Amino acid sequence: MAEFRFCVSVMPKPGILDPQGRAVEGSLPYLGVDSVSSVRIGRRVELTVEAATESGARTIVERLADDLLANPLIEAWTAEAIV
Amino acid sequence: MAEFRFCVSVMPKPGILDPQGRAVEGSLPYLGVDSVSSVRIGRRVELTVEAATESGARTIVERLADDLLANPLIEAWTAEAIV
Repeated sequence: MAEFRFCVSVMPKPGILDPQGRAVEGSLPYLGVDSVSSVRIGRRVELTVEAATESGARTIVERLADDLLANPLIEAWTAEAIV
Repeated sequence: MAEFRFCVSVMPKPGILDPQGRAVEGSLPYLGVDSVSSVRIGRRVELTVEAATESGARTIVERLADDLLANPLIEAWTAEAIV
């Protein structure tokens, strides 16, 4: 068995309200920044999986992302191995 | 002026308590998963910057990350351009 480190990025789906992103955009004028737009804020989950192969580890990560880490109604996720 | 899309990853620093990561780890047994460990949860911020050059855009992103997006006492950030 080997250990694989993965990152799961969970972002609000397009069209879904993103209050954290709006809050950041609302703060920009107070910082004198007028060149930043389309702020979206999601979660970054890093985890270690023990498995025989990377593809086996990825299967576990994908199941966790679907069942635990993201709400599929409002969030989309991507998973990538971290080297 | 051109538009550049960046991603800022904000993660709890090593040694800093990560209650969300602990909560996920605590849920794993109920999903029958015993091969996942070292879960760390942070934020992923995506934003668009209007600037003359990518390096100019990166300077703005780095200032925002330092001043607004991350708490430097407990969080570390990295920024990368999204193609």
